[in-house]
Amino acid sequence: MAKQELARVKGTRDLLPEDMAKRRWVFERIREVFERYGFKEILTPTFEYTKLFQLRSGEEVVDQLYAFEDKGGRNISLRPDLTSSVARLFVNSFQTAPKPIRWYYITNMFRYEEPQSGRLREFWQAGVELIGSQKVEADAEVIALLIESYLATGLKEFTVNVGDRVILDEFAKMLGVKDDIGLMRFIDKKDKIEKEEFVKGLKDFGLDDEGVEKVLALIELKGKPDEVLPKAYELFTSDVATEELKRIEELFELLDSYGVGEYALIDFGIARGFDYYTSIVFEAIAPNELGIGSIGGGGRYDNLIEVFGGRPTPATGFAIGIERLIPILENKGLLPELKIGSDVFIAYIGKELEVRKKVIELTQDLRRSGIRAEYDVQGRKLRKALDYANAQGIPYVVILGKRDLAEGKATIRDMESGEQFVVGLGEVVKKVKELLGE
Amino acid sequence: MAKQELARVKGTRDLLPEDMAKRRWVFERIREVFERYGFKEILTPTFEYTKLFQLRSGEEVVDQLYAFEDKGGRNISLRPDLTSSVARLFVNSFQTAPKPIRWYYITNMFRYEEPQSGRLREFWQAGVELIGSQKVEADAEVIALLIESYLATGLKEFTVNVGDRVILDEFAKMLGVKDDIGLMRFIDKKDKIEKEEFVKGLKDFGLDDEGVEKVLALIELKGKPDEVLPKAYELFTSDVATEELKRIEELFELLDSYGVGEYALIDFGIARGFDYYTSIVFEAIAPNELGIGSIGGGGRYDNLIEVFGGRPTPATGFAIGIERLIPILENKGLLPELKIGSDVFIAYIGKELEVRKKVIELTQDLRRSGIRAEYDVQGRKLRKALDYANAQGIPYVVILGKRDLAEGKATIRDMESGEQFVVGLGEVVKKVKELLGE
Repeated sequence: MAKQELARVKGTRDLLPEDMAKRRWVFERIREVFERYGFKEILTPTFEYTKLFQLRSGEEVVDQLYAFEDKGGRNISLRPDLTSSVARLFVNSFQTAPKPIRWYYITNMFRYEEPQSGRLREFWQAGVELIGSQKVEADAEVIALLIESYLATGLKEFTVNVGDRVILDEFAKMLGVKDDIGLMRFIDKKDKIEKEEFVKGLKDFGLDDEGVEKVLALIELKGKPDEVLPKAYELFTSDVATEELKRIEELFELLDSYGVGEYALIDFGIARGFDYYTSIVFEAIAPNELGIGSIGGGGRYDNLIEVFGGRPTPATGFAIGIERLIPILENKGLLPELKIGSDVFIAYIGKELEVRKKVIELTQDLRRSGIRAEYDVQGRKLRKALDYANAQGIPYVVILGKRDLAEGKATIRDMESGEQFVVGLGEVVKKVKELLGE
Repeated sequence: MAKQELARVKGTRDLLPEDMAKRRWVFERIREVFERYGFKEILTPTFEYTKLFQLRSGEEVVDQLYAFEDKGGRNISLRPDLTSSVARLFVNSFQTAPKPIRWYYITNMFRYEEPQSGRLREFWQAGVELIGSQKVEADAEVIALLIESYLATGLKEFTVNVGDRVILDEFAKMLGVKDDIGLMRFIDKKDKIEKEEFVKGLKDFGLDDEGVEKVLALIELKGKPDEVLPKAYELFTSDVATEELKRIEELFELLDSYGVGEYALIDFGIARGFDYYTSIVFEAIAPNELGIGSIGGGGRYDNLIEVFGGRPTPATGFAIGIERLIPILENKGLLPELKIGSDVFIAYIGKELEVRKKVIELTQDLRRSGIRAEYDVQGRKLRKALDYANAQGIPYVVILGKRDLAEGKATIRDMESGEQFVVGLGEVVKKVKELLGE
């Protein structure tokens, strides 16, 4: 078999028990918060017709889709996120359901990128969609939920930076730039490129020095609302812009009532990659030494459901990038020590069926009392069995020696301290529970 | 947008909150048992090189693979099960790790079938792989675990039927049939076709009347080991067969020690679809009126790791079919009533920012004390808000009327009984907890 074929596909990874335990811990923290906010879990198929994603974000998005033709000649793509599928599901079956709809998901997504990019082709997101409310309460609800999700994982050093597509549109209008979407996307990259290059890039959009100054002024519109908003009201004087700024002002008032205002900032330089955002957008940043950018984000998408053939329906939501969040939690020492595998290993001497049956009965007694237990299914010599338990980090070993069964006793060994306890066979469960502190 | 493109891809389904709640309940029951047996969770990528699956099961398996060529020209398939990926992972990174390896997974799988078959193209399995032990203890361990997994979901009417590939091979040799694999596969279908057709099919394999009689005798070798084994020892007299029958005899002795023997039967007519099984195979059947066949199964695969280029390593495992198990549990009324969505809905009158802020503060108080709560992010009239709470099945509504905030009180309404309680704002959390029985 060719080596390459026995390998994983590039850009994918195997998740080992330690990885899965961390994930589950993070998922459960986030899930608990999602449910306390009244959100309900859903899941859509792993693949959809490619057209669904094209309709949302234009043809160019196909470059980053894991798209293929299936055996039936259908153009299929592995989902790049859940928002399109959720909008499809809504249009298919939930248009007449009571609003708002509060849905959450925790699942894997896919993107196609050249392997050299080093980015994962399969990655996980935990997210919510709140469908049916146009009010700023809905924006506040999802932003507060995003903040509380991070807090639930123990993360404290982070901000959720709030921008606005209406303001950016107004800004592009002010500047008279034709390719306003292109400009917004370029501005979005501001933190990733040098200032000189940034200014040059702006001029490529046809901006003169005054225009460049204005963009730089916009980017400076970043910080706490009481500092930023007065300047913003001065810079943007159209009715549309003023109304949107009032919305943002109210958003921050509400976030204070949620008790999470300290984690939110304004950053009018944020556009977010997706074209379908229509108003408030946001992204979460946690300072780190790992070179990891945004750890989540979202925004309002009031047109998407209509684009998919549904009745106009406002919606907002976010997604948390799990492969970005976990390394930061780990790096900051925020993940607890997680128990993986057995609490007890049962080693024994003797090949007779009666011995082996006794070993199984004892193992089952332990398991039935809630202890994670395994016995030596290899039937190895004691020494080798102990080596295994040691290598696996199993904290206690029950040893059934040659005469132990006849005498009705067993030895329990604390693998860390080396301490041993001899107890009656009927006392093993009790003693192990005691040692485990249960 | 064409209707077809806004639809789901055929053979896929959306999982709604009720579906997800049931799944999670079943997954958690199964996960708990898996972990009590010392198994650790892993997850491999959603797609692998197609060759990996071909190597395992031959070219023909590609017909049922969700196979495609990706943009880089690679032949990729969505995983049809996890066993191949687990064997790959083992060969890649775990050959020198301490044995046995106890891994479990709960995840989705894919198969390509013509949509008219009505079978799902994306489906879920919960399974384990126990790698490294050739002993019958390992077979007993996974079969006992499979039985205990079903018991943990409340299922009691089921059997795990145990067959054996060595015995079937010996049988095919006895009959002198060339296409022994084909014959085994055909025998495996015995319960799905009429007897007459079955006999005719057997003759197509070149069997004479005596051969047909022998096959029918083999199929009758089904039941409790003390009834079946004496007959089997008579029918199969080769050394290889006798040794394998002793293995099976011991297996059932051990299953008794596990305390699960009553759920296990012998059925020498079982072959299981996959060619890679080498010895003991098994499948679980739960009588039902839904036309659902096997709800899980597995077996020993001692050659697969070598086929993948690894050192010869014995292994055994099973998978539970979630889309088969859940309808049976439902049909038998074994799923508990599951709480989905909010416990409390907060409705209010008043559009002023101060009112809305108070509503949020109250909602947050409820959430912070562990209650699943949502407020009316639509800002609707009271009546409409109550309609929503009612439609969602939210059991309690907190109503903040016009004068309530000024007077520092709120009304809590039991949506089922219609009973109402007026309490001080500071008492809402306590009263709701009391009503929820917490």
